Amino acid sequence: MTASREIRLADRPVGEPRPSDFELAEVDLPDPGPGEVLVRNRWMSVDPYMRGRMNDLRSYVQPFEIGAPLEGAAVGEVVASQADELQTGQQVLHQLGWREYALLPARAARPIDTDVAPDSAYLGVLGMPGLTAYVGLLDIAEHREDDIVFVSAAAGAVGSLVGQLAKTRGSRVIGSVGSSEKVAYLLDELGFDAAFNYRDGDATELLSRAAPEGIDVYFDNVGGDQLVAAISTMRPGGRIAMCGAVSVYNATSREPGPWNLPLAIGKRLTLRGFIVSDHGKRFRQLMEEVGPLVRDGKIKFRESVVEGIANAPEAFIGLLRGENLGKMLVRLS
Amino acid sequence: MTASREIRLADRPVGEPRPSDFELAEVDLPDPGPGEVLVRNRWMSVDPYMRGRMNDLRSYVQPFEIGAPLEGAAVGEVVASQADELQTGQQVLHQLGWREYALLPARAARPIDTDVAPDSAYLGVLGMPGLTAYVGLLDIAEHREDDIVFVSAAAGAVGSLVGQLAKTRGSRVIGSVGSSEKVAYLLDELGFDAAFNYRDGDATELLSRAAPEGIDVYFDNVGGDQLVAAISTMRPGGRIAMCGAVSVYNATSREPGPWNLPLAIGKRLTLRGFIVSDHGKRFRQLMEEVGPLVRDGKIKFRESVVEGIANAPEAFIGLLRGENLGKMLVRLS
Repeated sequence: MTASREIRLADRPVGEPRPSDFELAEVDLPDPGPGEVLVRNRWMSVDPYMRGRMNDLRSYVQPFEIGAPLEGAAVGEVVASQADELQTGQQVLHQLGWREYALLPARAARPIDTDVAPDSAYLGVLGMPGLTAYVGLLDIAEHREDDIVFVSAAAGAVGSLVGQLAKTRGSRVIGSVGSSEKVAYLLDELGFDAAFNYRDGDATELLSRAAPEGIDVYFDNVGGDQLVAAISTMRPGGRIAMCGAVSVYNATSREPGPWNLPLAIGKRLTLRGFIVSDHGKRFRQLMEEVGPLVRDGKIKFRESVVEGIANAPEAFIGLLRGENLGKMLVRLS
Repeated sequence: MTASREIRLADRPVGEPRPSDFELAEVDLPDPGPGEVLVRNRWMSVDPYMRGRMNDLRSYVQPFEIGAPLEGAAVGEVVASQADELQTGQQVLHQLGWREYALLPARAARPIDTDVAPDSAYLGVLGMPGLTAYVGLLDIAEHREDDIVFVSAAAGAVGSLVGQLAKTRGSRVIGSVGSSEKVAYLLDELGFDAAFNYRDGDATELLSRAAPEGIDVYFDNVGGDQLVAAISTMRPGGRIAMCGAVSVYNATSREPGPWNLPLAIGKRLTLRGFIVSDHGKRFRQLMEEVGPLVRDGKIKFRESVVEGIANAPEAFIGLLRGENLGKMLVRLS
């Protein structure tokens, strides 16, 4: 038996999640059965998509259940194994986050290589957020090197890789963020060509100033006014990868869609939604192309770290508020 | 010299065009110069896209100029020629509609084959509207035979071919229209599988009833609530060809965009705008595939005919109101 703590969904959030929508519970985990491993989680991920799973709506993933522990990506160390393929001491990535210890089938855990990057990177630039950026930019938006690229939530785990990857492939890159500190981060550290704080005024004006020649690709993490701005600013043949709409995740009423969508006709625009889990086969290319760039420091990433399982709900709430710079993580041990 | 009459733009319409936005003028046309022909127009087309050209906004086509004659597709007979390639008596298609006689370079007129279909069909099912339907369904929406297809403005020149073409290629087809007479036309004459009058209630409810299994393709001629309905009803991987947004062409304020657009992420939808003039190279395939079907009566089309150049503005205003069944035409002689 191993004593562990986990975060459960206490109530379905209405609007912005509150701490009382979550509860911390203590559990005793049995020892691993045949084919199972026990993992001591070192890092767990909080990601915007989790907000959708907290609603009672069938979506592309099942809703979380009230009273059950939440789930999500985590990395940790195998501390007990009843499976030949995973030994004690192995670092692994798996989907039973939001808890200190995870008991799971060995086949549901994937070994990670901490020579390429530190373990936490497998929750960010070399994990699901990294693959989201990679697939969204290259496959969904069909990025070409002479494209001018705009990405929102550009200081986050996905957006910061979108921008840097587009830069390494020859593009001019514009990012939007929610603070002047993040603007400086994009310009000074990540090498973006232009950046703006979307809170500074009308999104279309801000984007037009940052991209006077227009844009060809928009990687959309937020929806709302910035999607309107992108549609207005796009050049003919532009492409929008619809990845997220964090501006409406907490909405309790219907937020209006982009009023200027009919411009997509005359401009021959393509808007395409995608889900990263459809594209697991591209993970190898992510590791081959981005892995060395990360190892050599040519692609940078940051982490915003919250300490301890009890603070995981606050980390998640802060993520939806945009309080993170880079990947939002919870350190568990 | 030939006496002719033409319709000029008197004022840029605000909202729905009024008769006073147009003026009828008498002109004397000189005889054709070298390389020119004089065409007596028999039919002229009114099309929804013309509304956009009446605004003072640079779009994918130049705005019409105040005081100048309007333009658009027309067919007629060459009555005088100073060009070797076109003889007197030849039936031709050209872009100088909105007038009784057109003086133009012979290379701007294309001979038509009235053995395949009557001359007026080259303004509809075998003309620009037909090519719009063909390209939008096959190339933009990437139609596959097992797709369930929804088309709005389905009794119009474009929509009625979209539906019939999808049927000949194996699809279940649902159409929306603005009257019960048109519903009957779709079901009884064009062979649609289901049809509804969008004025009968909430578009999403009406579409869900007509397409209980969902839809895979939406050919969008109208925007507005029907686009919302299509997004809600789409199955994963669905595709939307954005062809027109007649619901907002006359708008004087910002109409809200589809509030449910974020559903496109989880459903992996693609929305793609297009302009038929980019796709002239597909005209040959339209004639090869649709020409014989029209000749053999397997693809049907109707025309709503208004008589005389003086009534052309009324024809156009009626078109935007949806008063036509099939292609709206003005007979000039």
